[in-house]
Amino acid sequence: MCNTRNQLSHRHGGTLPFDPTDERLAAAAWSRLAEPGDEAAGILRRHLGPSAALQWLHQHLTTTARVTASDASRPAGPGPDGGGHGWQQAVARWLPRLASLDIRREVEALNELGGRLVLPGEQEWPAGLNDLGDAAPAALWVRGQRLEPSAKNGVVAIVGARAATSYGETLAAEHAIALARHGLLVVSGGAYGIDAAAHRGALSLGAPTWAFLAGGIDRLYPAGNSQLLESIIDSGAVISELPPGSAPTRNRFLQRNRLIAAVSRGCLVVEAAWRSGALNTAGHATELLRPLGAVPGPVTSMTSVGCHRLIRHGTAICVTSGEEMLELISAAGEHLETDRPVQPGLLDNLDPLAAQVLDALPARGAAGMGSIVKASGRAPEEVRAALGHLELAGKAQRHGADWRRATRQ
Amino acid sequence: MCNTRNQLSHRHGGTLPFDPTDERLAAAAWSRLAEPGDEAAGILRRHLGPSAALQWLHQHLTTTARVTASDASRPAGPGPDGGGHGWQQAVARWLPRLASLDIRREVEALNELGGRLVLPGEQEWPAGLNDLGDAAPAALWVRGQRLEPSAKNGVVAIVGARAATSYGETLAAEHAIALARHGLLVVSGGAYGIDAAAHRGALSLGAPTWAFLAGGIDRLYPAGNSQLLESIIDSGAVISELPPGSAPTRNRFLQRNRLIAAVSRGCLVVEAAWRSGALNTAGHATELLRPLGAVPGPVTSMTSVGCHRLIRHGTAICVTSGEEMLELISAAGEHLETDRPVQPGLLDNLDPLAAQVLDALPARGAAGMGSIVKASGRAPEEVRAALGHLELAGKAQRHGADWRRATRQ
Repeated sequence: MCNTRNQLSHRHGGTLPFDPTDERLAAAAWSRLAEPGDEAAGILRRHLGPSAALQWLHQHLTTTARVTASDASRPAGPGPDGGGHGWQQAVARWLPRLASLDIRREVEALNELGGRLVLPGEQEWPAGLNDLGDAAPAALWVRGQRLEPSAKNGVVAIVGARAATSYGETLAAEHAIALARHGLLVVSGGAYGIDAAAHRGALSLGAPTWAFLAGGIDRLYPAGNSQLLESIIDSGAVISELPPGSAPTRNRFLQRNRLIAAVSRGCLVVEAAWRSGALNTAGHATELLRPLGAVPGPVTSMTSVGCHRLIRHGTAICVTSGEEMLELISAAGEHLETDRPVQPGLLDNLDPLAAQVLDALPARGAAGMGSIVKASGRAPEEVRAALGHLELAGKAQRHGADWRRATRQ
Repeated sequence: MCNTRNQLSHRHGGTLPFDPTDERLAAAAWSRLAEPGDEAAGILRRHLGPSAALQWLHQHLTTTARVTASDASRPAGPGPDGGGHGWQQAVARWLPRLASLDIRREVEALNELGGRLVLPGEQEWPAGLNDLGDAAPAALWVRGQRLEPSAKNGVVAIVGARAATSYGETLAAEHAIALARHGLLVVSGGAYGIDAAAHRGALSLGAPTWAFLAGGIDRLYPAGNSQLLESIIDSGAVISELPPGSAPTRNRFLQRNRLIAAVSRGCLVVEAAWRSGALNTAGHATELLRPLGAVPGPVTSMTSVGCHRLIRHGTAICVTSGEEMLELISAAGEHLETDRPVQPGLLDNLDPLAAQVLDALPARGAAGMGSIVKASGRAPEEVRAALGHLELAGKAQRHGADWRRATRQ
């Protein structure tokens, strides 16, 4: 598979075992070299493009020259986070992976899976990812259907606890169904619990859904959801910003959440404990100015505590139905929440005077004007007028000189 | 009991059967003449005082003169609502009741019940009622303990659906207990369901609680709660703005709710259907700028729909514990909600670099520096520094030239 001689010379600073001027391969290489969310890598690619950035990095393998502030090719912008050593530190963390990298193997593995690379700026690229700025992925590794047709009505994220209750799972599925019915694409993380229920809700309608994985898409993780993820590939897509073979580490889970938030018009948290990965996704959604909804639940349920916290602090809006979530992510005035149909009450649609007079009529039997006037506390002429209206409305009946409630109201 | 001759002459415009210059009797009379919340009566009392206002009204019984705009004694301010006839209309609705009024009977009934009148400005008068302006009651008819000592730490309202679930009743009691423990007095409406559960919660601690009734306090309504209301009288108070013998009409229930809102520093809705009397109390609380809390529940529960609506529209804050309600009604910075204690996670209290490096150590067995560098995506010198910190923190162990996770972390 790999050319040992080439690898050796590469390890010692020779040429790369793949063509670094191929922009697709270079972008794919960056998704292996830099951890998700590495803004220094993003800045470099933005200034030089993936290929030139890769060749710039490769120089550091072939020379002993260290990157210093006087380096003429040093791009502008802030250095990478964590360390304070700037570009020198960034190069030092990318180089160990570059030394042994042959991205052709990962691309080959992708092809064997029937997957494809999607690069920034391509038609399939979800536009929302651009809101991540320099933290946007270098590439997406995708298995499934083309991304842009299924996303044309917009994408909505439904996330939540892995250790969900049946209450939460039922609601996740119901929200997914309601939103998919309105043509929205449901995206989640493919995890147990709420994620799986949301995906299943969309699939139950035959609607596409996307799962963003924290590791490579060759390994359908978690294993217990592999069949579900296969179904998602059939009608929607399973997506990662990491090449096949990448392990899902904790940091990658957290960074994966930013993709779910970024591709979506809004994010719904169905169940979340006081600390929960779903709250991390909620945080990304808020930073990206995406509307955030949270489903309330029994205050006695530990899996609703995180949702209540989001609602209480005003971070999320209380959402109790798919329609309410739809209103939240829609343009002002679209998909407005409607009043629920209710059984009209006896005193509904009456002006306050008529209501007070009707209320003053005895529950059984009839009463005279004087008695109604005193019971209602309204003036005699007001009472007379109100009784006339109530009679016309079929709510009061004359009974000689007295008045009574109409027998059928 | 009543002097028929006097009554007759009174009915035909003679003297009142009680002394209208007695300010206490006059205030009591106004609580019978005008329906609760009648602002015209409030304006009149504010300008003339209850006694002079009563005598002014009594003139209209003895003369045929109608109150017109040119009436010299016409007080300033807006006329009463509903009708547009202003003072003429107001007088017309008070007079029928004045004609047959002998307030001494109601006061006598109060005395027989061991109750007392509490008037505006008296020490016992709950100061919050003054926020109602001209809609404040003319008097309170009270059975029970003195109001001001029990209310010295503040009053909080807990209200909700009569048709409550056991979830709601449990929470109402728990919130009442938590708030009473902090010295707050719980006020409610004495109704079935949430009201009763809130009262019972306070009583279970031996704490006083107040019930505001929509009718006279001679009739402990609803009958099924009469024993509860007797207990409330023993340690707290049962209160009405209407004299004994008054029936609880629909309008009086709605007006009673304004008293519950006004005497309180804040109001908590525990369960409420889409339309519910508790939402009326919530509306009064909001108008009076009282903080409003609502307890979320299962979105599948019809008795939580009203609470979710309040929360969703930002009318109420999501409240899941007595402590959260306490924070809501306290001055800024007092009684701040605290983070819940949680089991610390493996990567807690680690800086992001150390967390990433620890995350890169294999779950089982040991790994060399090169492997850790590539797995973590951090520069070699960063990894070395992080491993040193992790070793000191007891989270990583050297194993020859390799590193492993500490066996006990």
